[in-house]
Formats: sequence, structure tokens, C-alpha cells
Amino acid sequence: MFYHDSKLQYNVRVEKPNPEFARMLQQAIGGIEGEMRVCMQYLFQAWNSRGPQKYRDMLLETGTEEIAHIEMLATAVALNLEGAPLSLQEEMAQDRVVGAVMGGMNPQHILSAGLGAMAVDSNGNPFNGSWIVSSGNLAADMYANVMAESTGRLLATRLWEATDDPGMKDMLSFLIGRDTMHQNQWLAVLEELGGLNGVHPIPNSFPQAKENQEFNYAFVSTKINDEDGAAERMKSARWGNGPSMDGKGEFRVIPATPVGGLPKLAPPDPRGHAQQEQMEGSGM
Amino acid sequence: MFYHDSKLQYNVRVEKPNPEFARMLQQAIGGIEGEMRVCMQYLFQAWNSRGPQKYRDMLLETGTEEIAHIEMLATAVALNLEGAPLSLQEEMAQDRVVGAVMGGMNPQHILSAGLGAMAVDSNGNPFNGSWIVSSGNLAADMYANVMAESTGRLLATRLWEATDDPGMKDMLSFLIGRDTMHQNQWLAVLEELGGLNGVHPIPNSFPQAKENQEFNYAFVSTKINDEDGAAERMKSARWGNGPSMDGKGEFRVIPATPVGGLPKLAPPDPRGHAQQEQMEGSGM
Amino acid sequence: MFYHDSKLQYNVRVEKPNPEFARMLQQAIGGIEGEMRVCMQYLFQAWNSRGPQKYRDMLLETGTEEIAHIEMLATAVALNLEGAPLSLQEEMAQDRVVGAVMGGMNPQHILSAGLGAMAVDSNGNPFNGSWIVSSGNLAADMYANVMAESTGRLLATRLWEATDDPGMKDMLSFLIGRDTMHQNQWLAVLEELGGLNGVHPIPNSFPQAKENQEFNYAFVSTKINDEDGAAERMKSARWGNGPSMDGKGEFRVIPATPVGGLPKLAPPDPRGHAQQEQMEGSGM
Amino acid sequence: MFYHDSKLQYNVRVEKPNPEFARMLQQAIGGIEGEMRVCMQYLFQAWNSRGPQKYRDMLLETGTEEIAHIEMLATAVALNLEGAPLSLQEEMAQDRVVGAVMGGMNPQHILSAGLGAMAVDSNGNPFNGSWIVSSGNLAADMYANVMAESTGRLLATRLWEATDDPGMKDMLSFLIGRDTMHQNQWLAVLEELGGLNGVHPIPNSFPQAKENQEFNYAFVSTKINDEDGAAERMKSARWGNGPSMDGKGEFRVIPATPVGGLPKLAPPDPRGHAQQEQMEGSGM
Amino acid sequence: MFYHDSKLQYNVRVEKPNPEFARMLQQAIGGIEGEMRVCMQYLFQAWNSRGPQKYRDMLLETGTEEIAHIEMLATAVALNLEGAPLSLQEEMAQDRVVGAVMGGMNPQHILSAGLGAMAVDSNGNPFNGSWIVSSGNLAADMYANVMAESTGRLLATRLWEATDDPGMKDMLSFLIGRDTMHQNQWLAVLEELGGLNGVHPIPNSFPQAKENQEFNYAFVSTKINDEDGAAERMKSARWGNGPSMDGKGEFRVIPATPVGGLPKLAPPDPRGHAQQEQMEGSGM
Amino acid sequence: MFYHDSKLQYNVRVEKPNPEFARMLQQAIGGIEGEMRVCMQYLFQAWNSRGPQKYRDMLLETGTEEIAHIEMLATAVALNLEGAPLSLQEEMAQDRVVGAVMGGMNPQHILSAGLGAMAVDSNGNPFNGSWIVSSGNLAADMYANVMAESTGRLLATRLWEATDDPGMKDMLSFLIGRDTMHQNQWLAVLEELGGLNGVHPIPNSFPQAKENQEFNYAFVSTKINDEDGAAERMKSARWGNGPSMDGKGEFRVIPATPVGGLPKLAPPDPRGHAQQEQMEGSGM
Repeated sequence: MFYHDSKLQYNVRVEKPNPEFARMLQQAIGGIEGEMRVCMQYLFQAWNSRGPQKYRDMLLETGTEEIAHIEMLATAVALNLEGAPLSLQEEMAQDRVVGAVMGGMNPQHILSAGLGAMAVDSNGNPFNGSWIVSSGNLAADMYANVMAESTGRLLATRLWEATDDPGMKDMLSFLIGRDTMHQNQWLAVLEELGGLNGVHPIPNSFPQAKENQEFNYAFVSTKINDEDGAAERMKSARWGNGPSMDGKGEFRVIPATPVGGLPKLAPPDPRGHAQQEQMEGSGM
Repeated sequence: MFYHDSKLQYNVRVEKPNPEFARMLQQAIGGIEGEMRVCMQYLFQAWNSRGPQKYRDMLLETGTEEIAHIEMLATAVALNLEGAPLSLQEEMAQDRVVGAVMGGMNPQHILSAGLGAMAVDSNGNPFNGSWIVSSGNLAADMYANVMAESTGRLLATRLWEATDDPGMKDMLSFLIGRDTMHQNQWLAVLEELGGLNGVHPIPNSFPQAKENQEFNYAFVSTKINDEDGAAERMKSARWGNGPSMDGKGEFRVIPATPVGGLPKLAPPDPRGHAQQEQMEGSGM
Repeated sequence: MFYHDSKLQYNVRVEKPNPEFARMLQQAIGGIEGEMRVCMQYLFQAWNSRGPQKYRDMLLETGTEEIAHIEMLATAVALNLEGAPLSLQEEMAQDRVVGAVMGGMNPQHILSAGLGAMAVDSNGNPFNGSWIVSSGNLAADMYANVMAESTGRLLATRLWEATDDPGMKDMLSFLIGRDTMHQNQWLAVLEELGGLNGVHPIPNSFPQAKENQEFNYAFVSTKINDEDGAAERMKSARWGNGPSMDGKGEFRVIPATPVGGLPKLAPPDPRGHAQQEQMEGSGM
Repeated sequence: MFYHDSKLQYNVRVEKPNPEFARMLQQAIGGIEGEMRVCMQYLFQAWNSRGPQKYRDMLLETGTEEIAHIEMLATAVALNLEGAPLSLQEEMAQDRVVGAVMGGMNPQHILSAGLGAMAVDSNGNPFNGSWIVSSGNLAADMYANVMAESTGRLLATRLWEATDDPGMKDMLSFLIGRDTMHQNQWLAVLEELGGLNGVHPIPNSFPQAKENQEFNYAFVSTKINDEDGAAERMKSARWGNGPSMDGKGEFRVIPATPVGGLPKLAPPDPRGHAQQEQMEGSGM
Repeated sequence: MFYHDSKLQYNVRVEKPNPEFARMLQQAIGGIEGEMRVCMQYLFQAWNSRGPQKYRDMLLETGTEEIAHIEMLATAVALNLEGAPLSLQEEMAQDRVVGAVMGGMNPQHILSAGLGAMAVDSNGNPFNGSWIVSSGNLAADMYANVMAESTGRLLATRLWEATDDPGMKDMLSFLIGRDTMHQNQWLAVLEELGGLNGVHPIPNSFPQAKENQEFNYAFVSTKINDEDGAAERMKSARWGNGPSMDGKGEFRVIPATPVGGLPKLAPPDPRGHAQQEQMEGSGM
Repeated sequence: MFYHDSKLQYNVRVEKPNPEFARMLQQAIGGIEGEMRVCMQYLFQAWNSRGPQKYRDMLLETGTEEIAHIEMLATAVALNLEGAPLSLQEEMAQDRVVGAVMGGMNPQHILSAGLGAMAVDSNGNPFNGSWIVSSGNLAADMYANVMAESTGRLLATRLWEATDDPGMKDMLSFLIGRDTMHQNQWLAVLEELGGLNGVHPIPNSFPQAKENQEFNYAFVSTKINDEDGAAERMKSARWGNGPSMDGKGEFRVIPATPVGGLPKLAPPDPRGHAQQEQMEGSGM
């Protein structure tokens, strides 16, 4: 169950509202790298958690924290939209810098949201539930989380570069800091689960003897006409020779060769109404 | 530039076609864990690659290999659909096991694809380009790739459990093996890039001094009414104390406390046509 | 800011797990009538709230409660999936009723979620942020909320009919009760805002004198060849005569008549590369 | 069955074409508040109508009228695009106000539609069938319709503010007037169906005795650390005490308390290939 | 402007309702091959029509007819859903054939639509506005229309095969006939526009001298390791030699050869926060 | 199976990077007219190919070529983004023309892709697998392909108009040329399959005697109040009289007349919880 107070987790100040920046901030709310995604991802992982209790606990904690991050960003969007132009003629009457603003805004901030935040990204694409990963495998989930916090922190640093508003820079430095923690936190679980050797290949509960033993540590090279030395670069790279990262195989490079022969499908079922010529002429 | 021969990378045999399994296999084609995603993800990462040449090379190699995996799976879907029922009465005339089949099929396999593979997942959701991660940051991309191969191998092992067709099990054991390699391969890049300490926090090019220094290694606990000892579990976990995974901080646990005060938005702009009472009654 | 304890708001018991019912329950999580939608809708309305404080307060309260409803339903899905068949042969070996189950399941419950809940509806469509309404107009938002709780309660009663599991029926009777409250709650705001006469037409801050005065209380009838008396039914209905619901006009019925003449677009701009004949032959 | 003449329902004049306004108008065509949605919503409700004939009649009438509204708006978009810049250099050669235009346009108006209207919203998001509500319950549908006409009229008034073209303002004043009528019209049905007391809780055909009787008229407060008096505001509001809006209960405020205990999921099914440690360590 | 009567364009009879067939019929309503798509496609093409008046006329006629087809199919869905099972236990109590039905239904037909039609396809994917093609080029639009009517008629014949209900077969034979007409109708426009030679390459208003003259009639072969004689098959096919279909070139086969050299991107912009190693090590 | 070298199929040069043009180029990558669509469409058609071998061969060739087109365009996007502004203040400090740029960019090019290409269209809508047509009927597929290459060439000519960068114009003239070939190539298959008379109506394997014989060559006119002579234009057009394009019927024009009577649905099933009044009042 969940509770709230009405205060923000951290300061959200906007000294000079900028509706174009409001549009950019939406990426951190409803984008694939954004807070709605991590919030729901951690909560679903918690609710679906099967296995040691402490992972459910942790996921619930951090998922709950992320709701407060959506709240902060939604507030930042609303504040950046205050004073935004609401008519095209207003824009034109003013100076050029303002003139550019309305074209660079998300028009739905005016038309659909009345100068508030939306559940969309910086291009106005709606948040999409398919982005929420809760696989039932704890290690796979942790990599999904490290990845989410890596692209999330990357996004926050780019937003930090895009603005010179001190209030916004301060808020973003907080979110960047939280992402640092969260990257570390999910990596800590992977260490607890056994590190590279214990964790991989994911899932580690599938008997590895049942996977194909010829191709499971081979780098398959599809390159032809190699005039620029790529093959050599592949062979000498970390993934081209030496022990594999999981310690369970030896890396090597092999050329791509088709093992599977020509595929051969049956002629069409007549009731599927392919064209007549497909049924007659299979030998053509 | 790209080339092809007409052969399959590995054997695709179906001993006993099963249209319900065809539907499940679609997850490995057009699902978020599937081959279209990794194929396009690696190719876009290659095409956008800025920095050392060898990473572009590698991504292009493996992206190209993945096209062949889509090809194998598409062939497997088409073969599993051969002999599928095309009419509801046919289904009813036959025994019950067959009777269940049509309801469990993807009806578009009959209606839209004429018993062929589609660019959709196991629920018929179309493949979605938003899943393709190419962030411009090599380490973030590598985690996206490890994650994709982890959920991808997990999916393949579940498909392996779902079928007892020896041909399908053989094909899946090949794909499982390839996913093992690919997990290792992306991890090898992360090692080359400096391992946990060198790589994190991602992006490592943002001056870490500019992130908030109070909250960047703190586990924020939102739990209240802790009757079941979660707090204790958090404090003694790997992420609750000791050096952080990136070696750049010290983990600790702090209670969630609002620092940011009550948010305060301005009254609505009249031209946004909020309800009259919202403009008058801001003090209510 | 938000907090949690680890307990459920209400009992979630499943006596006899049913994976088909798990699929149906997904509609109440990730469907347009579901809890993710109302949760996010109320929270965004709160965060964007401009005007009297008490509406922000209330929206934050109920938005927070809804997170606990997602949690309950996610738990119910996970419990209903326990013991689900994971392979097609298993299905076939058992009796027919079970035989039908796997075809009626969401295959992603097996393949993508490892028998857990997902952010999707009963057809596996991902949750979509475009459903979240936060318009900046309090009365419009309240109608969006009444509507969401009406279709939501309708959904819950249909789920109640679909199952005979006493645990599930109990949980649903709680959610049905909550929806009763929430319908009433949003209607209470509409009363506070002035009732039908005070609230409508929404937005009430647009000077009504500026809307077209000929067509604003007229029922436009597009019916031709009226052999079954529809015109009569329209004229005698509540919307065909008498004072309008907002008390600001008089209902009447008028036949559809085009006022606007034939539309006339200019010939294509040559650089838009219409077909040659479109540019030459505008008079044809 | 449906018929047409080639004339517009009302005047569509554009004195000074503005491609940025064309982009904004798209919200009223393909947006969630737009005419495609209400058109299809009313028609589907009509076609699915079970019960008194006159509601089917009315829905068919107004659904048919809405097709003419899409037509008007599509014409308005096409007219606003006439003379739009088609090349980036053209833009740069001209003055700044024009200079801003191309960036603020929907690029697909140039590239995909050849200066015509599209089935998308103001951000280029395609129209989405999930927005069409036809629930089978007449009262729920009516609220969906009131809500659609409320956000629709709100949108139209914002478009009215955004332009100073007299032709466009005239067209919008007509659409605003029609939305006034349509709000009233759906409300008239709700009155016919019994008003608040007769209609609620929706659906009124579910025996209310079967819903939970403890929580069905209680405002659940999730607020903690209430330093700003929200609790008091809740208790004295219309929804905090006194008779409920449907006249079937008494409002009261109760604090959120978990009744449901800790959720407990079974360990993972081994064939779902959770990580090994999840299966071993459930007690951790 | 548009009008209606309340009658159906053609008979819609269902002798034996079948909820699984209702699900399949949805493909013809909200699927990419369905009637909502052609309806909106023809209407948007009409509304955007620039050039000879008669094409606008024709598109408006047929677009209006298609609304009646959606109506027929929606009615057919509603009729096929009558008597459908609404609870899982009901299903289990009955015989096996019925037992399979609920799993094969669209669960939203029960939960969201109250046994009515929806704006979705046979997998429950919502109708999507991106499918609507109105390009501004009449010939391109005509091919989009021929294609839509080809896949549409294909779909209708497959639905015809899937059912043995005489009422449904009769309705489908009508729709199949209409699709025959519509294929012919769009082809007639292409003939009027000049046939293959006059129409192609589309757009014919782009000066063909400005396209690359080396590659515009060459079949580029990407095949390597050609052991099965594909090259020979390509050379002797209609597209491998002889005059091109538009009569403006000569077909020939050439091997794929890269002309463009190695792509070379600049190092990352530091403010985009690539990983440090990408900026340093561009030469690696 | 697939192979690559690292070179581009054709030159990709950008003399003066333009981030707004980068956004427009995305339409040719991830838009419905773009290269991802044709690439995947041809490959899926090849993989699903049932019937004469040479069509599988050809589809595989051209599908493989299209991967190289995505590669070229992705490279063009990345090159056009070099030097793009990354902060709003930078924009404002510079002159107005640059000032307009950031608002006209895809913000995700900065925030999500680090100045690289994405799998989206010019509005940032993600590529969508539903666009990929592989119907199982060769003739229907060929029309889908002609249509894709027609809108594709149209798009390329519009991009050609939008830029004056000589490198970009050169690249586009190559792509325009390739689209000329591909239009001709798919038309060649249609000729091989029998031309209009042999191919239509598609599918030609459905016994035409089973389609409705009254309506299959009739133009149905829904026009009423015909004051502008549309009826006459319809009758004298190619589709209004004379032999049909497939040579199997005679065109004629008939007025739209409802044959199907009033639809009549049963009252609601009580367990679907329609409103009480719907069940009682069916006769109203």
C-alpha cells in the first residue's frame, strides 16, 4: 500500500520559464529512458517477485521513490510552461527569439494539457507499457535496470547541458546523483548473485549442456571483402580470443557459413487463396 | 552494404507442425526480446558509431548475423503453420485437442499472412521501433545489449520448454548458444572500457563533482510501518553499506524525507480556458 | 513524495488459480478502463493542478490509493498464474478443459513475464499514455474521472461475473465498492463547481456569446428516408425540445443542411510532386 | 447506410494560410479530443446499441454529423497549408517570422500528405482506435460522450485563441456551438435514465448489496505528515461528509490502513527459468 | 456533408452465433485490410483532393459507401456475440467445443464492449491512423487503394472459408463483390491517367533526367555463393532484360558493388556525453 | 543468411549539416514510406514465399539491397546532425536562422540518440511492424510493393526539393533511381502473372461465381442533392460504363439503396451489466 505527503523530494525551481525546455523535460517523464518507465518497472518487478524477500523489499523502495521523481519533473514542466505564448499572432508580434518558441513547443502542452505535464515523451509519443521489463528472472531484470539507469543518467546529463537555468540545473544534479546510486544498487545485486561467473549465461538455471556447444563461444563474422582489416581487429579484441567473460568457454572467431540449407515451404493451402499461379507453378 | 545467400544459418526442421507454437515463436521475431529488435539495435548502433572503429565493426557483424536469425524463425513459423485449420467448422469436426488449436492461434496467421510469419509478437502486437536503443554512449548501449541478450536467451529457453518437437528444440539450442556468446561479447566490451570502476557511473564523461553529493550513494528508504524487518535487510545488503560498485562512494541507507517543500503553480492563464472557479478560487 | 508499507490494501486470495482469468484481470491493470490509467490520471491532474488547493489535495489522495489497486491486481494475476502449463505437450497430455487453457492464456505470461503481471490489457496491448487525461480544466477532468470510474466499475462487475473463485469475488467486491465511492467523489466536485447550470458548457470561462448562436442548442438530424419514425422520436425526447440541461438555451430539432458550399482547394504546388495530370487538369 | 452531398456543413474560410495552425488543427481531427474519435465513438455505440431504439437513433444522427466535422477540419488544414514553404533554403532566404515556420510545421504535411490533412494529432501521433468507447452500458457511454465533448469544446476554444484569422474563428465558433449542444444532449439522456440517483453507481444493474459495504462511501486518505491541513479540507468538502451524490450512502473520511497483509507468491516454476538463486533462496 | 438512413446496405444474418468468428470479423473492421482503413483513406483522399473534380467526387462516393460496410460488419460482430459465455465456470460446465470458445474469444468483447463490435483487429490491436494513405499524388493513392482492396478481398475470402454460416457467407459474398468493383475502379483511374507508360515512374512530375541514370533500370543482385542458379533465373525473368514496364528504360542485372566507400563520422560532441573512451580513442 | 562489407552502396556526402533536414530524412528511415518498411516487407515476403522459386529469389535480393539503403540514410542523418546545437542558450546567443533550428529539430536526436539516426519517422513516431505486408498472395503483395515504391519515390523527390545540399541531392537522385527500378520490377511480376485480366480480381483463386453478381461491377453512388453534376461525371468516366479493367464484367452506375433492412440486436445479457433501463425498455 502507498502513502504520500504533499511535498517534493527535492527542490524544483525555475528561474526563467522556457516552454521548449518543458518539451525536452517530457523525455524524462514519458520517454523510454524516463521515470514512468523505471517507476513502473521496479514496482512490477517487486509485485511479481518470486524468491528471496529482500529483493522484493528493495524494488518496492526504489519504485516508490521514482513516483516522487515523476512528481518533480511534472512540476518542472508546469513551471516551465508558465507564460508560454498561447496564440500564433502573439508570437509574431514579439521578437524573434520568442517567435521561434511556439514552433518548438509541444502544441499539446497548449491544446490538450492547459500548460501542464503529460504522459508523453519529448516528441509527444505516449508512454508505452511495452517498455516495462519484469521477466521473472532476477538477473535479467537487474540488467534491464542498470540499462534503464544508464540511459536515464545520460538523458539527465544532456538535459543539464541544454539548460542554463540554475534551478533546473540543481534539480537535474539531484536526479543525476540518484541515477548514480541506482546504477550501483542494481550492480550490487548482480554481485550478490555471483558476479559474471555466477550470473551468466542468463538464465543460469538452464542446463548449459543443452545449448549448442559449437557456436556458444564463437564470434561469427559475416564480413566479406575485408579490405580494411576488420577481421584482424576482431581476432585481437577481448571477444575474439581468451576465456569468455563468464569463465565457461573460450572465445574464438569463425566465418559465417550456412549450415541450414535452402528452406523449403509447402505450396499454399488452396483455402488461403494465394494467387492461382503460386499453386500451379511451384516448380518455376 | 549487405549480401545474402539463400541458405539458412542453421537447421530449421519441424517434425510436427503446431500452429499454437507458431504463435509463441512470434515473440522471438517481433517481441521486445526478439531478433528484429537486436538486429536493428546493433545495426543502428553500428551506423551511428562515433569513436573507435572496432566497435562499429563488431556491431555490424553481429547485427548482420541477427538478420539470419529472423530468417530462421520466420521459416520456423511458416513450417509450424502448415496444415493449420482454416475454418471453424473443420476444427469442430475433429477431436478436442485439435479443437482447441484455432482459438489458441494468432488469427492473423490465417487472415493476414496466409500461413506465414509476421512482424509481430506472440500477442499480435506489431514490432515497435521505440525498443531500439542507440544512445550514442557505448557503455549504455552495451548494457542495453546485455539486457536484450539476457531476456532473449530467457525467452529461447522458455520456448525450448514449451515444445517437444526435436527439430524445434535443436534450432532453439542453437539460438540459446548464440545468446550465450552475445552476452559474453557485450560484457567483453565493458571490460575493455574499464570494468565497473572505469565505466560507471554512465556516462563517465560527465564531471561527477557536478552531481548532488549527498544523495549519490544513499539508498533512500520510503518504507513506513516497518513491522517485518525490511529496514534491517536493506542495511545489511550489499547496497546498504560498504564501498559502492564503482568504487567511487560509500553505500548508506537514509529515510525518505521531503526536501522540496510544497509545489506552487501559478493560477491558470485565462486564455487556456480552465473552469472559471479555478481562476477565482486559487485560495480555496 | 511517496511512501509504502509492504502490505496490501485489501485481501487478495486465489483459491483455484486460473491462468485464463489472469489474462482477463490484465484488463483492470493495463486496459483503458484499468487502474494504471486512473492512477496516473489522478496524479497528473494533481501535479498540474492550478486553482483551489483542495482539489490538488484530493486528487493526490486518490491517485495514491490507486497505486495500491494496481498492486492488488498484479498480485492477483501472479497468484492466478501459479501452476499454469508451460509446455504445449503438457497441455495435450491432460484433460480437455486444461487442454483449452494454454490457448486461452496470454502467451507472454509464460514467455515474457515468467508468470507475473504485465503492464498490458487482456489482449496484451501495452498500457498507453495517451489515455491519461489532464486537461487543465477541472470540470472536464472530473467528467473524465466519472467516466473512468464508470467503465472501471463496469469492468469489475464483469470480472466478478466471469469467476466463481470466492477470493477473487471478494477482492472484486472491494474494488467495485471503491469505484462507487470514486464516482460519487468526482460528482461531488461537479456539484461544488455549480452543478449542470454552473458547470456547462465546459469550459465555462469562454464567453458564450462568441459561440455560434444558431446551432448551439439544435439537434441536427442527418436522417433521410425516415420510414420508421425516428424524427418523431427525436422531437419528443428530452434533447428535442424544452430547456437545455445547462438552462442556457432551448432544445430544438433541425434538419441537416449544408451551409458551407463546395470546398475548393488550389491546384497542387509543383514541388510537392503530385501527378502531372493533377496540375494540368484542374478543370476536368 | 450513409449518403453525402459535396457541400460543407458550415463555412470554412482561411484568409491567411498558416501552416503552424494547420498542425494545431490536426489535434481536432486525429487527437483524443478530436472529431474522428467522437464520430467513430457515436457510430459504434449506435451499431452496438441494445435497448431502447431512440438511443440508437440519436447516436446514429450525431455520429453522422461528426463526419461532416472531420470534413470541415480537413478542408481547413488543406487551406492553411497552401503556400507553405517546401524547402529549407526557401525558409532561410525569407524573413525570420517565415523562417520559424518550417520548424514549427508537421514535416509530414510536406513529405507524406502533399499539403493535405492527415489522420494524426498535433504531434503527428496517429489516430488510435483504443480511444473509442462503446461499453455496452448506456450511462457509462453517455459520460464518455460528455467527457469527449467537454475536452473537445475546450480544445476548440484554445484553437480559437491561437488564431486571429476571421475565417478560422468563425468556423471554430460553429464547432464550439455544436459542442455546447452535444454536451447538453448526452446530459439529457442521463436525466432520462434517472439522474444521479437513478443512474449511479454505474452499472446500476449490479446488485449493490454485493459490493463491499465498508468502503463504498468512504474517502480513503493516504496522506501522512499532514502539516498543511489537508485532512481538514477533506473532511469539510462535499465528498467528506453528508449524503453521497447518488443518495445511497453517507460520505466519510477514513485513513488508509492495509487490510490485506503481506503478499506471498510461490517460488518460481523451474521451467520458467528464473535465476537459480531465486529458487534456492526463497527464505533469504 | 453526410446523411444516413437506419437500414443496412445489404443483409446481415447470423444463423448460429459464433464468438470466435466475431473475433475474426474484427480484422475486417479495425485491421489494416479492413473497412475503417479504406473508409477513412478514401475520404481523406477526397477532402485533400487537388486537381480534376471527378476524382474528388468518386472518392467521396466510395468513401461514403465504406461507412456502410463498417456498419454491416459491426452488426455481424454483435450478432455473433449473442449467447457468448460470460464466465469461465459456465464454459467448463459445458461440452468441450464450447469449452474452447472462451479462450478463443477476444476477452474485450466481454469486458470492454458488452458483446459489441470494437475499433480493433482480430488480435485486439486498435485501429491505427498511420495506415491511412493520402499522399497528394493521385497515382500513388490509386495504387494504395488497389492494394487495400486486394488485401481486403483476400481477407474476405479467407473469412468466407472460415465460416459455414449461410448468413455470413452471403454477407461476405457481397463484400467480396464490392471489392472486385473497387479494384477495377481504381485501376480505371490509372488507365485514365495514362497507363503504365504515362503513370510511371510515380511521381511523373519529377524530371526523370535528374534521377541517377546508371541504376534506374538495373536489378541489383546481392546474392553471393550462388549454387542454386538464382542469377540465371533473375537474368531470364521479365525484370532482368528487355524494355522496362514504363517503356522508359531497359532492364538489366548487375552485381551489388559498393560505390560509397567507408562512412566516417566525426568524434562525439563532448556535451552529448558519450563515454570518455569514445572521445579519446577514435583511432583505435 | 546474410553478409556485409563495411562500405556504403552509394556516396553519402553532406556539405553543410542541417539538423532540421536530419529530422526530415527520418521519414525515409522509419516512416511508413521508408526503407525499414520495404526492407522488412520484401524479406518477410521472401521468407514466407510459397510457389515459384524465382519470386523468393527476387524478393530476397531486393530486401537485402534495402538494408543498404537504411544504412545510407542513417549515415546521412548522423552527418546532418554534426555541429547541431545542444543547448537552448547556445541557440539564443546566435542569429535567428540558427535560432529557429533547435525548435525544428527532433529533440530525441539530442536527448536519446546522441546525434545519431533512430528507428522513427519525421515526427518521432516509432517504426511500426503493422506496416509490413506479406499476405501470402503474390499479386496482392506486388501491389503493396508498387504502392510502397510509389510513395517512397514521392517522398524522395520531396526531400530532394527540401534541400539544396549537393551531396544530399546526389544521394537522393540515386535513391529516386532505385525506386524507379523497383516500381518497374514489381510491375513486371504482375505482367508475368497475367496482367490485369489474369491477375484480377485478386485473389484469382476464389471462384468468382461465388461472389455477389449484382454488385460486383457496379459503381454505387451515395450522392444526394446532386446540384453540381457529379452523377454525370461518374457515368461518363472510365469506371462508369464499358468493360471492367479485368475484362470480366461491365461497369455501370447505380444509386445506393439499402437492401438490408433495419438491424435488430437482442436485449443485453444481464450479466454484461448494461444499465437497467436498457434491459427493461427495449421497446422504447
